[in-house]
Amino acid sequence: MKLATLKNGDLDGRLIVVSTDLRHAVDASPIAPTLLLALQQWREVEAPLNTLYQRLNRGELSNAFAFDPGQCGAPLPRSPQWLDASAFLNHGHLMERAFNTDPIPDFDTIPVMYQGASDDFYGPHDDIPMPSELDGIDFEGEFGVVLDSVPMSVTSEGALKRVRLLVQINDWSLRALGPREMKTGFGFLQAKPSSSFAPVAVTPDELGDAWADGRVKLSLHVEWNGERFGSPNGREMNFSFGELIAHAARTRKLSAGTVLGSGTVSNESRAAGSACIAERRVIEKLDLGEIRTGFMKFGDSVRMQAKFDDGRDGPFGVIDQRVVKANG
Amino acid sequence: MKLATLKNGDLDGRLIVVSTDLRHAVDASPIAPTLLLALQQWREVEAPLNTLYQRLNRGELSNAFAFDPGQCGAPLPRSPQWLDASAFLNHGHLMERAFNTDPIPDFDTIPVMYQGASDDFYGPHDDIPMPSELDGIDFEGEFGVVLDSVPMSVTSEGALKRVRLLVQINDWSLRALGPREMKTGFGFLQAKPSSSFAPVAVTPDELGDAWADGRVKLSLHVEWNGERFGSPNGREMNFSFGELIAHAARTRKLSAGTVLGSGTVSNESRAAGSACIAERRVIEKLDLGEIRTGFMKFGDSVRMQAKFDDGRDGPFGVIDQRVVKANG
Repeated sequence: MKLATLKNGDLDGRLIVVSTDLRHAVDASPIAPTLLLALQQWREVEAPLNTLYQRLNRGELSNAFAFDPGQCGAPLPRSPQWLDASAFLNHGHLMERAFNTDPIPDFDTIPVMYQGASDDFYGPHDDIPMPSELDGIDFEGEFGVVLDSVPMSVTSEGALKRVRLLVQINDWSLRALGPREMKTGFGFLQAKPSSSFAPVAVTPDELGDAWADGRVKLSLHVEWNGERFGSPNGREMNFSFGELIAHAARTRKLSAGTVLGSGTVSNESRAAGSACIAERRVIEKLDLGEIRTGFMKFGDSVRMQAKFDDGRDGPFGVIDQRVVKANG
Repeated sequence: MKLATLKNGDLDGRLIVVSTDLRHAVDASPIAPTLLLALQQWREVEAPLNTLYQRLNRGELSNAFAFDPGQCGAPLPRSPQWLDASAFLNHGHLMERAFNTDPIPDFDTIPVMYQGASDDFYGPHDDIPMPSELDGIDFEGEFGVVLDSVPMSVTSEGALKRVRLLVQINDWSLRALGPREMKTGFGFLQAKPSSSFAPVAVTPDELGDAWADGRVKLSLHVEWNGERFGSPNGREMNFSFGELIAHAARTRKLSAGTVLGSGTVSNESRAAGSACIAERRVIEKLDLGEIRTGFMKFGDSVRMQAKFDDGRDGPFGVIDQRVVKANG
């Protein structure tokens, strides 16, 4: 099942169901007005939403309309919690070298994770206002899960059963601000503005075998200003989403609608390229002896789309957006 | 004006107006069903809420009822963002010695702040479920501000004008988990379960001269299992709330209803005592050569109440609650 959210001026937008081929959509608000409300009563709405999805795919709905990602907000324009891990250790180890920070203790055995802003997620084609090019504007391509309510101290196995939807995320980052915030020990705040989401959130069955071991085994194709930047695959994630959820819920329950991200997708192979600029820069330093790539400028665009191993487009649709100068 | 939220089974509860003496209350839901909605349309609801408050104080309302803090949730049971600073440098410097962590860079000139869970705040008398006594269960008494929407890159002066309400907070902390999370650079997650709030949120005018320089100049009287623990005063805050808000909004806008905390209230004078156990422990180590105080056990209670300099009770009501073993 594929779900998206049309902007309508309300904080949570309006829920629509999207066809498998992303060409058609239908209003789902008679079943649940918003995706957040749907997640809060998933047991009641899953079957009716799925019936609507099947009928949409069969072309049976007279009220279907053309799906326009440009009218979409993030699938959840706001969420109870946004927790972002760094579950690709290859990325983490490279970033330690980029930021010249101390090795993270127990990095290989205990997930690291920060809590970010979840009140103002960006849609897939929204312009992204940033205050200054000097902040080191960077994208971070990643995958995420949207959760049902999760009890405190859940096991990894139990946690994985609480995954309701999968999403594709651009976790905007300001690299000039990150190292200082890491050194405070309090973690990222200014360095992590609101994140962007691909238009479509999907139930895990939409991925077939590409959802396995609590991992999204798709490659994430990233283009910066129309040029290929990287296409690392989610299968190299060093912690499963089950392990990440259990880590997050160790001392707290999680509300339905919580979004948990993988951290930047990153592969050992240099041929995969990168899903963020900071990683390319440290690789340039290591392999070429000097940094050759700058960060984003106002007007720059980034495009992200997941792909299956056989080359088919992933199910999430496309993030394609520009960085602009913030007002004021 | 004094506002509180009655639990009614909904995520945001139901808004009530509370009398100056905290003895009476009246349903405010005809004006705004919840405090979150009131904050989202403050310009429209402030005057009618204030009229209701004045009539309640004059005893003119036949539908007034006895105010019972035991029926209250947090004033905002959920909030778009919860950002917590560490703005009392005395506390921060002691905690560096307690945790044996490196000095925080620029700690005296740039605020430190983490983002915590804001989807599940505790009411003033709720039992607090914790998974294990081994986690180093601690309270942290602090003051906070509730904000109107704040534009990105606001100045400190402009930021202070966006303060709508003041609140009193117990920021629950798990000290056995904090140092490792600080060393990751990603900040607190497991170490910071949901926070608790005193029942009443107040407009700044309720504090009179005790709201000045962007600081809550009240002492916070903390009792642990019925014995005095400390009564540090908010006037020694090293950054104003205006400065803290501007720091938070440097690269993001803040949604109406965002809550920003001061961090543990802490004074230079040893006579003031402490508002958290970790601070007392490091003072014992420094002054007595050994730690004598353990952390909280299941069944322990903590009570927090603000007071004016002349001994009058503060406006927020009382936090008084027990730690219990979490199920599961």
